[in-house]
Amino acid sequence: MRRAAEVFERKGVANTSMEDIAREIGIKREGVYYYFKSRKDILLGVILPQSTALHRNLERICISRLDSVGKLHAAIQNHLDAFNPAYLEMSVALRESHFTTNDEKLSEIRQIWDSYGELWTALITEGQDEGEFRTDLEPKMVAFGLLGMCNWVSRWYDPVKSVSISEIVETYFSLATNGLKVPEEALSH
Amino acid sequence: MRRAAEVFERKGVANTSMEDIAREIGIKREGVYYYFKSRKDILLGVILPQSTALHRNLERICISRLDSVGKLHAAIQNHLDAFNPAYLEMSVALRESHFTTNDEKLSEIRQIWDSYGELWTALITEGQDEGEFRTDLEPKMVAFGLLGMCNWVSRWYDPVKSVSISEIVETYFSLATNGLKVPEEALSH
Repeated sequence: MRRAAEVFERKGVANTSMEDIAREIGIKREGVYYYFKSRKDILLGVILPQSTALHRNLERICISRLDSVGKLHAAIQNHLDAFNPAYLEMSVALRESHFTTNDEKLSEIRQIWDSYGELWTALITEGQDEGEFRTDLEPKMVAFGLLGMCNWVSRWYDPVKSVSISEIVETYFSLATNGLKVPEEALSH
Repeated sequence: MRRAAEVFERKGVANTSMEDIAREIGIKREGVYYYFKSRKDILLGVILPQSTALHRNLERICISRLDSVGKLHAAIQNHLDAFNPAYLEMSVALRESHFTTNDEKLSEIRQIWDSYGELWTALITEGQDEGEFRTDLEPKMVAFGLLGMCNWVSRWYDPVKSVSISEIVETYFSLATNGLKVPEEALSH
């Protein structure tokens, strides 16, 4: 899986053959076909567990007893930590636009990601309802903005050269909470 | 170009053949080859003018007499307005990971985008130097965070159903400037 993810990342999913994956592992193509029917099955194997874990963790965060600021921190951390051990897999999942095809399993992933986006939107909405976040911004736009901020990390993050993931978590959390802070004048009412 | 961009967007660049593009236009494949050597040339035709314009506009913004908050607003607007008339092209440019290949023309685009990212980082750095933005956040991380926020719009923005681009501009500008605001206690020193 890790080898396949590396080839996907390097060549792009559409340009990667079963042959390429076999070569990367150092076995014959038949060896790969023994375990996987197609390239798509391998791609699913790369993306699905990652997406499911990300979603399940965010669900736990949303129903936890943290306040909304705490939930936001946990949500950003959960999202960005996924880049850490498995940034390649994530990167592949986020870059490719395979989710537009009609394949049944792929649409399962699509659904997880849709639901994931909805959880983020609900987290922002809750913070607004609780008076922790300013209410003049549209929650979905905010949620997708923050997700975009985090997702873009897969484009520029280099685990060897770059800053640490935890620095990115703290920077984006700080930007987000300050950006969402209720203005002083509103608090005094 | 517009037709080609639509097919690229729908099928992904790697899955799009010259045949597909010809069919979309309603001409023979030979007709497309008369103007373009390859699919890659068409892709470049879609991405290069867009990238160049985006970069040139940001350069103008950076050397303008606006203060840093004003530059930030103009930079976000410049970036997101590109989605408006040509969101498909942008979307293709941003989604695909063709920039990793060694092609000379593609590396030209890559350079424009690298330089574009550096301009954004310089804009944030200038704002910190001028005392307009808080100085405790790493400028590149902030710049790429805001770019990611904007770039992600290509994934969820639907020009038919969605909110307007100008609403997104104002929301993200507001989030960003509040997020970057110098804390009150720091101002009183």
